[in-house]
Amino acid sequence: MDFTEKRLEGEYKYKGLIVNVRMDKAELFNGHVVKREVVEHPGGVTILPVDSEGNCYMVEQFRYPMGKMMLEAPAGKLELGEEPLLSAERELSEETGFTAEKMVYMGRYCTSPGISTEVLHIYLALGLKAGKTHPDEDEYLNIKKMPLSQLADMVMSGEIDDGKTAVAILKAEKYLKNQSK
Amino acid sequence: MDFTEKRLEGEYKYKGLIVNVRMDKAELFNGHVVKREVVEHPGGVTILPVDSEGNCYMVEQFRYPMGKMMLEAPAGKLELGEEPLLSAERELSEETGFTAEKMVYMGRYCTSPGISTEVLHIYLALGLKAGKTHPDEDEYLNIKKMPLSQLADMVMSGEIDDGKTAVAILKAEKYLKNQSK
Repeated sequence: MDFTEKRLEGEYKYKGLIVNVRMDKAELFNGHVVKREVVEHPGGVTILPVDSEGNCYMVEQFRYPMGKMMLEAPAGKLELGEEPLLSAERELSEETGFTAEKMVYMGRYCTSPGISTEVLHIYLALGLKAGKTHPDEDEYLNIKKMPLSQLADMVMSGEIDDGKTAVAILKAEKYLKNQSK
Repeated sequence: MDFTEKRLEGEYKYKGLIVNVRMDKAELFNGHVVKREVVEHPGGVTILPVDSEGNCYMVEQFRYPMGKMMLEAPAGKLELGEEPLLSAERELSEETGFTAEKMVYMGRYCTSPGISTEVLHIYLALGLKAGKTHPDEDEYLNIKKMPLSQLADMVMSGEIDDGKTAVAILKAEKYLKNQSK
């Protein structure tokens, strides 16, 4: 059964640096009218760079809302109107210095679809060529080179708890195993 | 290197139904002071119920911020002060009617750690016993019984694009393969 909801009206309650918050009224399939709170987010990209020896290049940075350093796949927000693939190539270069011969699209990733419009596009970067990093201002990070197999273990143990990073690692592991068959 | 940031001050810019938004000033490790926008979310649980034949019980519901029906693992928000395991048992029962003999903790999942405090706790529910569903008011969903192997394929193909669901399925697949070795 299809439970599609129809937007009737809405207004912005907050306009911020990264997100906006909208409160809509929506009509349910049964005619009921409900409030729907929506966090608008520009979305972004996540890139897992894997070299020919099976090593990944990860970034470790302080995540203020979580209050801790976190090990993640390189990632960034989409700029207005930017194509995800171009954004992924830009972020990969900014954070790790790499360019990739091949960017394999690993699918969309909705971070919190009950409340947020945020969608990330995940790429596996292969055929890496080193270059210079050029992180954004006030973006401070450590680059860590680690085997994909070790990262998969860290996802399973819970040591890696960032959602997009967990998906990127587990998808890349399955994809590369299938490729090598 | 440790890039810990220290909260100096902050104020609420929005208080809503599910989320609040705070704007803080924080001091970086190098003394620079920056603004940090934080979406406060109560967090929640995700439960993947898998029966003895390898079938999962999924929920399909309309996700207003995404504007589409989505196939997801059963999930819900934590109530104030609620233990994640109790919340997982409650949501499993509400959405699918099942109780589980064994709840295996599959780790934390940060949905969007650069902007949101949201953390989900993922459980694998085994030893399922059927009962009656009792969904929340204005929560409408279809229950779908599907093999875990098919769901893993749908994650890889991108047909399943909900982050928590992708993590729950890929982690459960690896965990159950290791158990059966």
